[in-house]
Amino acid sequence: MISMQKQIKLINRPKATPTKKNFEMVNAPIGEASEGEILLKTVYISVDPYLRGRMNDAKSYVPPFQLNEMISSGVIAQVVFSKSSLFKKGDVVLGSLPWQEYSIAKENAVRKIDHTIAPASAYLSVLGMTGLTAYFGLLDIGKPKAGETVVVSGAAGAVGSIVGQIAKIKGSHVVGIAGSDEKVKFLLEELGFDAAINYKTQNVAQVLKEVCPNGIDVYFENVGGEISDAIFPLLNNFARIPVCGAISAYNNEHADVGPRVQGYLIKTSSLMQGFTIGNYSSRYGEGAKDLATWLTQGKLKYEETITEGFDHTIDAFLDLFKGTNIGKAIVKVSDIE
Amino acid sequence: MISMQKQIKLINRPKATPTKKNFEMVNAPIGEASEGEILLKTVYISVDPYLRGRMNDAKSYVPPFQLNEMISSGVIAQVVFSKSSLFKKGDVVLGSLPWQEYSIAKENAVRKIDHTIAPASAYLSVLGMTGLTAYFGLLDIGKPKAGETVVVSGAAGAVGSIVGQIAKIKGSHVVGIAGSDEKVKFLLEELGFDAAINYKTQNVAQVLKEVCPNGIDVYFENVGGEISDAIFPLLNNFARIPVCGAISAYNNEHADVGPRVQGYLIKTSSLMQGFTIGNYSSRYGEGAKDLATWLTQGKLKYEETITEGFDHTIDAFLDLFKGTNIGKAIVKVSDIE
Repeated sequence: MISMQKQIKLINRPKATPTKKNFEMVNAPIGEASEGEILLKTVYISVDPYLRGRMNDAKSYVPPFQLNEMISSGVIAQVVFSKSSLFKKGDVVLGSLPWQEYSIAKENAVRKIDHTIAPASAYLSVLGMTGLTAYFGLLDIGKPKAGETVVVSGAAGAVGSIVGQIAKIKGSHVVGIAGSDEKVKFLLEELGFDAAINYKTQNVAQVLKEVCPNGIDVYFENVGGEISDAIFPLLNNFARIPVCGAISAYNNEHADVGPRVQGYLIKTSSLMQGFTIGNYSSRYGEGAKDLATWLTQGKLKYEETITEGFDHTIDAFLDLFKGTNIGKAIVKVSDIE
Repeated sequence: MISMQKQIKLINRPKATPTKKNFEMVNAPIGEASEGEILLKTVYISVDPYLRGRMNDAKSYVPPFQLNEMISSGVIAQVVFSKSSLFKKGDVVLGSLPWQEYSIAKENAVRKIDHTIAPASAYLSVLGMTGLTAYFGLLDIGKPKAGETVVVSGAAGAVGSIVGQIAKIKGSHVVGIAGSDEKVKFLLEELGFDAAINYKTQNVAQVLKEVCPNGIDVYFENVGGEISDAIFPLLNNFARIPVCGAISAYNNEHADVGPRVQGYLIKTSSLMQGFTIGNYSSRYGEGAKDLATWLTQGKLKYEETITEGFDHTIDAFLDLFKGTNIGKAIVKVSDIE
């Protein structure tokens, strides 16, 4: 039995875009499970843009990562050895776990998943935090109605791709904004969006006017910045803006400056609301049920960009800020046995 | 009987801050009331910052004023001659009427007010649109709770002064931001605010930290601009921002630029909502009743800056953008007889 494993630690805080120099891979003992604990082998690691915020030493909705400690995120793992009556060897579980090849977890820190109804990785994407983020942000704040126009930025990403499909299920006219022709094609041909804009090659403000002839009722905000600025002049009365992410600003060293939004909000009586998925923890069951139903009905598709090998975890994280991924970014560390 | 009167027309659209050159005072016949109409003598004219927006040729929540037509706003008037069974000579009414000394109005365009329970001018201020704007914006969107911290900008103005007092009635810690030491004194000594900041002489961001030791739960937005920018870093989780006005930007010729707010809204799950009082038209009765009750109980004070004489109406409007008024700006055109 092996006794050593690899771990990934944050060794200094990124100033702008994170680089490999911010992290260190070290060898460390796996350790032993005590009573009520389980030894887990890491299967999939979720890499997410919000982790960038936790690398700053700043107050936010989750505490910052500590220096010289491991990064942690959503992880799918398999029980190797159990000292808990709740789990047995071979169980597949989901939890917030450190970036390492093996973890010792308390029995209440993870929950079992059923990977016969969907692949285990789906519990990090469409059936996990990103699917639930799309679900609650869109339906609880955005409240799209049939015939309304819903625009989503970061549309080919983990959250955006689900947002657009749920809006289609609700009968809305759905427009996606993304960063490549490949993504635009994916949105139109795979996900059934009504229109899609490549912000790198097209004039977003101008194309939005053409593809939103009735204005914009819901804007699901994933990116912030200039793309977002183009939305405000097109808002209809009583528009809703769930503010989920602002990836364009995460690596800014200086203040993120743009047109102030107050005037637009007043003119249209529109609402902007920031949220994080934790706000909805008491309602996860409701969302997970609808998402699973739509998935099995074939109404919801999901895409994953899977990077193979624990050694490439940092690369997979850094790739998030290059804008090349489609769907959910996941690192595959081992096979389920 | 006199047959001619003065009227004020918009003759060209202001590019930045309005000036006298945008308006013209003309003489015109008073006209005659037809069946179902009443002849009204103007008593009080309401001058309001939102009228500036209607002077632009731009889509907003109210249509723009037409060139070479009269400005109109909230007016208190007295019936001189009635061809309606609903009104008799001497009745005092409230309506949206043109800026002129006499008006012919259809009987359904105005409503009678009872100026024995409060001075007639109060129906343009605390018991009128500005009181209702404060009431619904603060209570329906801001939802202040006892012990929470409420900050209001434009705090000595028509809306802000009522907002702060209602927040005090609800048991909140109330901080006002205003533009002179006289206003600060008024907020602290007359209206019972817990703290007040003179943004012209004090560092708003720094003083806010001192007077809001528990952060900010509600920010009632009247001004926009740099004052508003100082609020966002201090927002508590689940803060609410009713966006009522952005007077600092009304006269901007160029885009109003500042720190983007998305990141702050995400970190704190905060809400910003634009509104106009028309959204609440079905609930005016509810607000008017509470405001009148608080007024008679002495819990609500109101201040008016009254300019005497129809000839000074334009001056009174232009003064709004100088930031010198306290409370509601009103022009007194004639006495109630």
